Amino acid sequence: MSLYVDKFIKMSLEEDLGLLGDITTDNLFNEMDYSEAYINFREEAVISGVEIAKRVFEILDENVKFKAFKKDGEISKKGENIIKISGKTKAILKGERLALNIMQRMSGIATNSKKYMEKIEGLSTRIADTRKTTPLFRYFEKLAVRHGGGSNHRFALYDAVMIKDNHILAAGSITDAVETIRRNISHTTKIEVEVENLEQAKEALAVKADIIMLDNIRGEKLAECVKLLKGKAIIEASGNINLSNLEEIAKKGVDVISTGAIIYSADNIDIGMDFI
Amino acid sequence: MSLYVDKFIKMSLEEDLGLLGDITTDNLFNEMDYSEAYINFREEAVISGVEIAKRVFEILDENVKFKAFKKDGEISKKGENIIKISGKTKAILKGERLALNIMQRMSGIATNSKKYMEKIEGLSTRIADTRKTTPLFRYFEKLAVRHGGGSNHRFALYDAVMIKDNHILAAGSITDAVETIRRNISHTTKIEVEVENLEQAKEALAVKADIIMLDNIRGEKLAECVKLLKGKAIIEASGNINLSNLEEIAKKGVDVISTGAIIYSADNIDIGMDFI
Amino acid sequence: MSLYVDKFIKMSLEEDLGLLGDITTDNLFNEMDYSEAYINFREEAVISGVEIAKRVFEILDENVKFKAFKKDGEISKKGENIIKISGKTKAILKGERLALNIMQRMSGIATNSKKYMEKIEGLSTRIADTRKTTPLFRYFEKLAVRHGGGSNHRFALYDAVMIKDNHILAAGSITDAVETIRRNISHTTKIEVEVENLEQAKEALAVKADIIMLDNIRGEKLAECVKLLKGKAIIEASGNINLSNLEEIAKKGVDVISTGAIIYSADNIDIGMDFI
Amino acid sequence: MSLYVDKFIKMSLEEDLGLLGDITTDNLFNEMDYSEAYINFREEAVISGVEIAKRVFEILDENVKFKAFKKDGEISKKGENIIKISGKTKAILKGERLALNIMQRMSGIATNSKKYMEKIEGLSTRIADTRKTTPLFRYFEKLAVRHGGGSNHRFALYDAVMIKDNHILAAGSITDAVETIRRNISHTTKIEVEVENLEQAKEALAVKADIIMLDNIRGEKLAECVKLLKGKAIIEASGNINLSNLEEIAKKGVDVISTGAIIYSADNIDIGMDFI
Amino acid sequence: MSLYVDKFIKMSLEEDLGLLGDITTDNLFNEMDYSEAYINFREEAVISGVEIAKRVFEILDENVKFKAFKKDGEISKKGENIIKISGKTKAILKGERLALNIMQRMSGIATNSKKYMEKIEGLSTRIADTRKTTPLFRYFEKLAVRHGGGSNHRFALYDAVMIKDNHILAAGSITDAVETIRRNISHTTKIEVEVENLEQAKEALAVKADIIMLDNIRGEKLAECVKLLKGKAIIEASGNINLSNLEEIAKKGVDVISTGAIIYSADNIDIGMDFI
Amino acid sequence: MSLYVDKFIKMSLEEDLGLLGDITTDNLFNEMDYSEAYINFREEAVISGVEIAKRVFEILDENVKFKAFKKDGEISKKGENIIKISGKTKAILKGERLALNIMQRMSGIATNSKKYMEKIEGLSTRIADTRKTTPLFRYFEKLAVRHGGGSNHRFALYDAVMIKDNHILAAGSITDAVETIRRNISHTTKIEVEVENLEQAKEALAVKADIIMLDNIRGEKLAECVKLLKGKAIIEASGNINLSNLEEIAKKGVDVISTGAIIYSADNIDIGMDFI
Repeated sequence: MSLYVDKFIKMSLEEDLGLLGDITTDNLFNEMDYSEAYINFREEAVISGVEIAKRVFEILDENVKFKAFKKDGEISKKGENIIKISGKTKAILKGERLALNIMQRMSGIATNSKKYMEKIEGLSTRIADTRKTTPLFRYFEKLAVRHGGGSNHRFALYDAVMIKDNHILAAGSITDAVETIRRNISHTTKIEVEVENLEQAKEALAVKADIIMLDNIRGEKLAECVKLLKGKAIIEASGNINLSNLEEIAKKGVDVISTGAIIYSADNIDIGMDFI
Repeated sequence: MSLYVDKFIKMSLEEDLGLLGDITTDNLFNEMDYSEAYINFREEAVISGVEIAKRVFEILDENVKFKAFKKDGEISKKGENIIKISGKTKAILKGERLALNIMQRMSGIATNSKKYMEKIEGLSTRIADTRKTTPLFRYFEKLAVRHGGGSNHRFALYDAVMIKDNHILAAGSITDAVETIRRNISHTTKIEVEVENLEQAKEALAVKADIIMLDNIRGEKLAECVKLLKGKAIIEASGNINLSNLEEIAKKGVDVISTGAIIYSADNIDIGMDFI
Repeated sequence: MSLYVDKFIKMSLEEDLGLLGDITTDNLFNEMDYSEAYINFREEAVISGVEIAKRVFEILDENVKFKAFKKDGEISKKGENIIKISGKTKAILKGERLALNIMQRMSGIATNSKKYMEKIEGLSTRIADTRKTTPLFRYFEKLAVRHGGGSNHRFALYDAVMIKDNHILAAGSITDAVETIRRNISHTTKIEVEVENLEQAKEALAVKADIIMLDNIRGEKLAECVKLLKGKAIIEASGNINLSNLEEIAKKGVDVISTGAIIYSADNIDIGMDFI
Repeated sequence: MSLYVDKFIKMSLEEDLGLLGDITTDNLFNEMDYSEAYINFREEAVISGVEIAKRVFEILDENVKFKAFKKDGEISKKGENIIKISGKTKAILKGERLALNIMQRMSGIATNSKKYMEKIEGLSTRIADTRKTTPLFRYFEKLAVRHGGGSNHRFALYDAVMIKDNHILAAGSITDAVETIRRNISHTTKIEVEVENLEQAKEALAVKADIIMLDNIRGEKLAECVKLLKGKAIIEASGNINLSNLEEIAKKGVDVISTGAIIYSADNIDIGMDFI
Repeated sequence: MSLYVDKFIKMSLEEDLGLLGDITTDNLFNEMDYSEAYINFREEAVISGVEIAKRVFEILDENVKFKAFKKDGEISKKGENIIKISGKTKAILKGERLALNIMQRMSGIATNSKKYMEKIEGLSTRIADTRKTTPLFRYFEKLAVRHGGGSNHRFALYDAVMIKDNHILAAGSITDAVETIRRNISHTTKIEVEVENLEQAKEALAVKADIIMLDNIRGEKLAECVKLLKGKAIIEASGNINLSNLEEIAKKGVDVISTGAIIYSADNIDIGMDFI
Repeated sequence: MSLYVDKFIKMSLEEDLGLLGDITTDNLFNEMDYSEAYINFREEAVISGVEIAKRVFEILDENVKFKAFKKDGEISKKGENIIKISGKTKAILKGERLALNIMQRMSGIATNSKKYMEKIEGLSTRIADTRKTTPLFRYFEKLAVRHGGGSNHRFALYDAVMIKDNHILAAGSITDAVETIRRNISHTTKIEVEVENLEQAKEALAVKADIIMLDNIRGEKLAECVKLLKGKAIIEASGNINLSNLEEIAKKGVDVISTGAIIYSADNIDIGMDFI
């Protein structure tokens, strides 16, 4: 696990423990008390967050035993024990809520991601998330999307260029925007242009945008754009795409469909901890 | 706004900007470019997060003008402009996503909170959240619950005692658990005991627990417990409570109903930024 | 030990070591040098800080052997070796001053705390500290109070409500202040009201304050207040209470006496490290 | 004020405010409420901490008006108003305890420092503190010593060399210890050697130690050492020096007397805040 | 300027000021002392770091006046005053060394970058830096490369994929490596493959690598590779490229030449501060 | 290794890994993959940074085996393997660039330092660095100077006083400047005065400056100053000193020659990692 994950977990533990700690547990248990507990999925779901939960308990008790029966990306049955934890009672009780809070959200997103992917099974289209995420929790939300079979869009404002209407206005034209930016950025960074019609798509293609995002373009117009762009730029469709229109758009031949809802519309999975 | 809010915003901006910044915007706009934009609610909702959003833009541009037409806790109409921002274009574009990510989630929770409260209108019961929150975002989620008319349960493991089954087992009895803890904590801290039946409720009352939580007790048994405890301890009901059984339980006379779903089952509100 | 303790120790070590380290020790000893040393109490005292001192040395040398012959809260004899440390010479020399600085202050407070408690032996009154503490060192000072048999008041501004004269003025009355706050805070948080006379005590009781603090009320008036409140609210006495008037006030039947002096008037205990 | 002071104040405010803030004040006052208050010295004292207190309030309210009638190092009369603060009520109430906690301790040390200096008035001896300080608060404690007329010893383990018995043992001799270290450190760093008798003092002088500390040497032996060293090295006396033997030792002609008690034996000064 | 720049500057000021500050300046000047000074280039150079230096002084004195006569990327004459600073003497003296340390290094790199670019004037080849940078200073070093007319390669390990020999070995083949990674990363991220011969270049092209880096390929072989790849992938040449062979390689038609030396072989520019 | 070194390494790893990590390596290797690699010096050099590089890999993989065949300060042959690393492939690949970036710069400085020292072999003059260093990297650069046989000047603005022309102007005279400062600083801190002629040197000596720096004084005038000061103060020469005039100045009998070029003019050493 990365340095960021550890930092995030420590800060989250501080959120829940403050300076005073778990004033219930600390006054009833001592360092010698050991317990065993299962993390149980109360519903069928795509499992996500196992590796993160492991770090939660390891940070609280470096000798904890954490045994996962299934891995991130696999499917839990309703009522299935997915993880067994053995270690200091204090550590298990202090980490319980954080570990569950992380897993219930990540598994919810992974399960949602799988639902989206099933809609387009057999097609080669990717479904990608967006930057509509919970502040500071983005890394985990985007990881969960992948556990469910989905893909990620750019992580943040710094790892890919995305030229939208405001930028185009400021630069004067799509061409000017792309050329100005290309001159200043690394050749290792992709440029995506958001377009609203075939005209703009043509201009973006002419100036060699790596990715052309068709914003809210549907039906025949979408087909025309795809025909123009296929194989020459990565074609991304976006804008009000949900489970009901997903398949129709994918079938038009776009390479990527991006939708914030894959993350923000996910329902949490009910996960509990049962002491043995 | 508190030091914590500022710290949270700076860290969230770093999540989105990294070291390199907004490589699209920074290459097209300069420090002299100014813009105006509205933050618009695409649906009716309880507004939440206005004060936080304000800090986002102030941190990015200390001279930004941020005018809110409605306050946290008030109701937006569908399509209503709630905030007008005037300032550096770069600051507005860099803060846009973070401000919206915060507001769409907070307003979703506030709106959900109101929905819960409406179910028990006229009753004196409180509806309180739990610690089932998003890591590092708890402060904002609990604030949103209040904006919607709901109440907060303890913030974390450190600001109130909550004795559950594991603790009772370890201490030997409810009485022992409460007495041991009371000896060691401040007289300014409340003790809550989670009980499963009337017997336990009696014991918790006898040992003067401040709050007695009736876990998954319903119907006649709930009525008996309420009769026993009313006016002698704060009565809290919890466990699988949702919009459909909320009213029934409240009418039994409990003081507080706690439910994690008030936060985790909230749907995000669709909010956008429109440049003028 | 908690994450906070470790963070505090690391920052304190940085205070003493800076970037350059212990320029005396680092130039004379190498990583292979090992030593043994006792931590010796030069006077009789209530021991406090052993667990913290342990972390100091563990952070500097993860293989250090730290053997405590007595525990926090026990009594040292004059000249008694309380701890034996075996480990890297560099680690022992670098941690020495910090460990002693922590223990001499904590043991001083614990010893003072015991002196206060002895004054009221046999009575059920608690003696509690206040927020008059050394910045950033509060956690340790309040822990030491408990090691000496005393109790803690609220830890900070966030874990209990304390309504004082300014607040009452602003709200209009004690009743208004309590009701306004109660509406906005968690049901898990206690409300304390500071009163100056029987009249105010009655009002605070009527509005169901959890704790009523009698500020500088003595003699007959104190007795009247206690008679009114006993068993109905927690009675706290405060204001210019010291070793000479402590017993008299406790005997009036108050539940808690709070005094900043239990911490700030404590004398450091003389503790040294002796290499073997 | 330095970056460190600001960092310290922010951390100390977090200690007292946590994430939730001042739950009493925040629920009764709003951003528009303004107040005025005096910081009043309840006893005669050497004032110390005014500049730090100023930063506390400035950090909480950038428009606060903070007027100091006397400066650090000057003498307060009993009951004298030293500072007048005008600003947001919330900021004043949140900063009150921290500002007072800092000033009561710093003024206590400054007053103690002055008491020590008065004992040797007219003599050219310096009285210096040691590293027996409160963790993380050392900067402020050493500043207070200077406000009272005393001097500082090295700040930490990194800004001067101090060779003690363990170091001498490890190196083989005073000569070896000094020469080894001198070879490895900057020519801008002083070397102090702690000696226990005339013999050692001679060796330290021969190897050109910058400062020679006479540890627990008294009477005739002290006089001999001073005679040997005067004008050739800085002569420092240390070890169990207090108010009663201070003058006698100073009169022997030592340049510096160092004593931890100047800091750790100081009594807090009683300082309060009075709203106008 | 970004949040990162401010954080970097504050940490760098702490490196130079510690807790104690500038003990020379702080003891001779007071808050009321003002000065004016020029930052003067002792040699002709490409100016770089002006905007960073500005933030150094603004952080130390928020009212400082900082007037730059030339901008980053422009050419200084030998002995030319480039910046005039007016503000608190203490702030100017404390920031002097840091500002100069930043500018002398950045201007050195910018000047070197320009030297490289002049070698290939008229050609469309880019010259890009690498990750051979000074730890924590990379952002500034890469910015300076751009000020001199050069380009940046990927910033770090996270913003572009770079498949080298070890990765190819682990994956089994270039094809497997690219396909495995492509499946797991965002469609917004480019994939670069390092190849050693025409064979490998063909395989990388077949699997649609975005960038193909020809490692240490020269002469006829280089020409063959360029012929194969031109217009189909970005062609990057790397490996022991310096000022003497730069032009020859560029003329072969590669799109990008990457070289760590553009940063690490740069000589510092002599820049001084002159008080007026 | 110190707490600072670990903090620096973690921040530098974050610079290179961000939140997303090494997206090439992480997608091709798993936790079970192990590798062995040599760190090889491509040129003869004074080795520096071995101990730091060790911490880089230990932080990434606590079970890594790191075997150094030579120590910091020893000489590498061209093409010699200096370190062998065995551990997780992911850890080795992630730490490679940082470890090499540190070692190539530190070894460059150490090698340069040795070159300076060889010029004055047999003389007792020290050669010391200055504060012309890379921000945040100073600790490592000054350590490297020592590995090459050179010495350090003061580390920062806080560990020694250095009175320059601006300070003298502000104080009125050298005498006033020294006396004012001496009164306010610890007796453990040295005072250095920069002088431009014999006159000033005399004044600095009269007021007992510990170190007198002769700024840009050469030839006969330098000889006169040395004659005056020898044995009475530490004599430091500075100002435009380089490899060509070093010996001549040293032979005049100065104690220390200080030059920023020992650090900033050093060329990086070519060091690579070869997997076995």
